Amino acid sequence: MTKRAVAVLGRGVVESDAEVLSSDDLGLTRGDGCFEATRVVTGADGSHRIDHLPEHLARFQHSSHALGLPDVDVTAWQELVRTVLGAWDVPGEATLKLMITRGRESAPSGPITGIATVTPLAERSLRQRRDGVSVITLARGTSSDAYAAAPWLLGGVKTLSYAINVAAGRFAEAHGADDVLFTTTDGYVLEAPTAAVVWLSDARLHTTPTGATGILDSITQKALFAAAEASGFPTRYALASRDELLTTDGVWLVSSGRGPARIHTLDGIQLPHTPGLSDRIRAFTGF
Amino acid sequence: MTKRAVAVLGRGVVESDAEVLSSDDLGLTRGDGCFEATRVVTGADGSHRIDHLPEHLARFQHSSHALGLPDVDVTAWQELVRTVLGAWDVPGEATLKLMITRGRESAPSGPITGIATVTPLAERSLRQRRDGVSVITLARGTSSDAYAAAPWLLGGVKTLSYAINVAAGRFAEAHGADDVLFTTTDGYVLEAPTAAVVWLSDARLHTTPTGATGILDSITQKALFAAAEASGFPTRYALASRDELLTTDGVWLVSSGRGPARIHTLDGIQLPHTPGLSDRIRAFTGF
Repeated sequence: MTKRAVAVLGRGVVESDAEVLSSDDLGLTRGDGCFEATRVVTGADGSHRIDHLPEHLARFQHSSHALGLPDVDVTAWQELVRTVLGAWDVPGEATLKLMITRGRESAPSGPITGIATVTPLAERSLRQRRDGVSVITLARGTSSDAYAAAPWLLGGVKTLSYAINVAAGRFAEAHGADDVLFTTTDGYVLEAPTAAVVWLSDARLHTTPTGATGILDSITQKALFAAAEASGFPTRYALASRDELLTTDGVWLVSSGRGPARIHTLDGIQLPHTPGLSDRIRAFTGF
Repeated sequence: MTKRAVAVLGRGVVESDAEVLSSDDLGLTRGDGCFEATRVVTGADGSHRIDHLPEHLARFQHSSHALGLPDVDVTAWQELVRTVLGAWDVPGEATLKLMITRGRESAPSGPITGIATVTPLAERSLRQRRDGVSVITLARGTSSDAYAAAPWLLGGVKTLSYAINVAAGRFAEAHGADDVLFTTTDGYVLEAPTAAVVWLSDARLHTTPTGATGILDSITQKALFAAAEASGFPTRYALASRDELLTTDGVWLVSSGRGPARIHTLDGIQLPHTPGLSDRIRAFTGF
């Protein structure tokens, strides 16, 4: 077992192996809840630097609203984050995860369940950030406008119902790839199961638009675009096919734990590599 | 709080409010697992009659395989069912629920988590079985062949990732309807969030085919069709549009807890009602 720190809303720090969820918690029985995950860097002196916490709490709020859950009590969650980090002193990179579930099925007017955990960033993530990833495209089954005016499909909502995302990852692994790029029925790339896709073409950084596509509004991608624009590097939201990606100057999967990971191979085809480019993308995202 | 009975695989009966899941259980963090639910009828003498347990355990096995989980140990689960029912003596109808999760993220080679619960059948379900339901159609975002050759989309797998199903139910409730009928992008009806759809036309019972549509293989629908065929009542698997349903002789949502519930209103349009027909459907399904 790796070292972990765990804190429960309204309860504080608990033992990392503690059982914290009832058998009828809707987070378990229905995947009915939402989460956020971001990176925490802990110094040798035990100090913590959390990436983009306000943005993650804002997206947490958005997910909660979309699920008809009560308002996220931002002050209480900031306090819970301080509490769980008070129990974490492992130097290096870790993942801070925040989870809300609708609470217990047998207590419909009872409280939500709130949990914060800290775990060391996986070796595999650090390696993929450094060396890049091989990716296969997999159909997501939906068109690029499937989520327009269909709030019940929970487009852009970071729910706990990630079974398809993990199944796609397992499928990729079984086929010798590191990760997946989901595609629409009308032929565009969407996102990876736990990362956004960003590409460089025409001296401009691009990513898939959110909204009707149903993809998650990526905090790492937005931080990257903001830093790029601030450096005079233009950015753009656009739909692109897999074949278009093959002729760009670089493609990356970006997420808050692993950071940016260059796609070196897409569906078995090696992508062009401009030395130094990934360093720049990493610098833009603070990795 | 309603009375509940809870048992955990490898542990036995636990207190019904007991916390049984760690904060990094993949059932919580990813909705990564599967479940089954069926009806148990408890007699005044405390005896139990479980509906279609072998069929539910077979579908549990199918879901586990599709998720790359270990084989369901049928003997152990039969024993767990006996154990949890040993703690249940409330006369009347209840729901027996079985859940498997991939276990703890921090223990990749550790055991799965297995939980069995018994809860009284909701008043609302009994009422809807008796009085029928008003239903609205909602787009599922996928075509009728979206799940063909795409195992990572987990078509036909009863996963714990039900956030869209419950969100659709909430959307219906907010719009004054009792339930939802999902539709494909090419205009066919699929299933309800937790029930199959069955309709009577041309003196034949129909339902949506499984497989490429991605819908769940309904045990209640199959029991209904088997009983109907045995009574000389023909059945058929076919795609139908919502408009086709409006001119049938009857439409029902069938599931293992609520049983069959006639759709009396579809998208605000009253459906024809042949007295006695729902009684026959209930008899065919054993409700």
